[in-house]
Amino acid sequence: MMTNLCYEVLEKLKGKTLVTAESLTGGGIGAALTAVPGSSEVYKGGVICYTNWVKEHILEVPAEILERYGAVSTWTAGYMLNVRKLLQADVAVSVTGLAGPGGDEFGHPVGTVFIGYEDNHTSKVIYCQFSGSREEIRNQTIEAALRLILDNNK
Amino acid sequence: MMTNLCYEVLEKLKGKTLVTAESLTGGGIGAALTAVPGSSEVYKGGVICYTNWVKEHILEVPAEILERYGAVSTWTAGYMLNVRKLLQADVAVSVTGLAGPGGDEFGHPVGTVFIGYEDNHTSKVIYCQFSGSREEIRNQTIEAALRLILDNNK
Repeated sequence: MMTNLCYEVLEKLKGKTLVTAESLTGGGIGAALTAVPGSSEVYKGGVICYTNWVKEHILEVPAEILERYGAVSTWTAGYMLNVRKLLQADVAVSVTGLAGPGGDEFGHPVGTVFIGYEDNHTSKVIYCQFSGSREEIRNQTIEAALRLILDNNK
Repeated sequence: MMTNLCYEVLEKLKGKTLVTAESLTGGGIGAALTAVPGSSEVYKGGVICYTNWVKEHILEVPAEILERYGAVSTWTAGYMLNVRKLLQADVAVSVTGLAGPGGDEFGHPVGTVFIGYEDNHTSKVIYCQFSGSREEIRNQTIEAALRLILDNNK
């Protein structure tokens, strides 16, 4: 399922480059995409920003955004799309959220996920509320991120 | 198995920070580590440098090294450890290699993998020759990288 989605994404983006900024999935989107042989023609790489330090210092998510809205927010997912400029790519996807077991100090429940998408024409962040185990939430996030890329590249 | 190794690594590195630079695994080490709840206390994040562009421009692997020795080389794995300074961590691990199906123009066979390790006291690169499918080679690489961290943190 996930593998089919990856093939589809890589096929749709042929001739373009894709990068990722992953928080809760910790590299899972990159790992899924690169399971496909030849994926390097589209997938350039990404930043695993599992901690706020990396979000702030590498992806330039402003400290005041992280402080005021938290790492799990529309704002943070949006700023994480800076990965597109950093890695000079056509398309970027970003994910931040709570895989559990605990929520955050902003009152978000486990399963709250924000996914960002950006290309030369559009920039957006979608909100998802997933449920299930930590692993299930992470897998649903990877799948939703791949689908968001497809939705924007028909 | 992999999950147990991840728990062990995170336990051994308690009080320290860990970062990754992944080429052939494409984020698989980060994804494995972050499957463990609370992993953010140790695992800060990483760079997925699936293409030479990212290796050169983000991790500062010199272009002449990539040209002369290739991305799959002791030299490249060593330079990829620059991720430790970039993300300001105590411990870094880097992986570069050929998961297949094809070899490279330097004559390395599929399954050739170099794994780098660095902390405040030591810096090294080990060479591995794995076999099996693309997935198997990637999984063996993740496991070997985790074991290398354990070997250096007894």
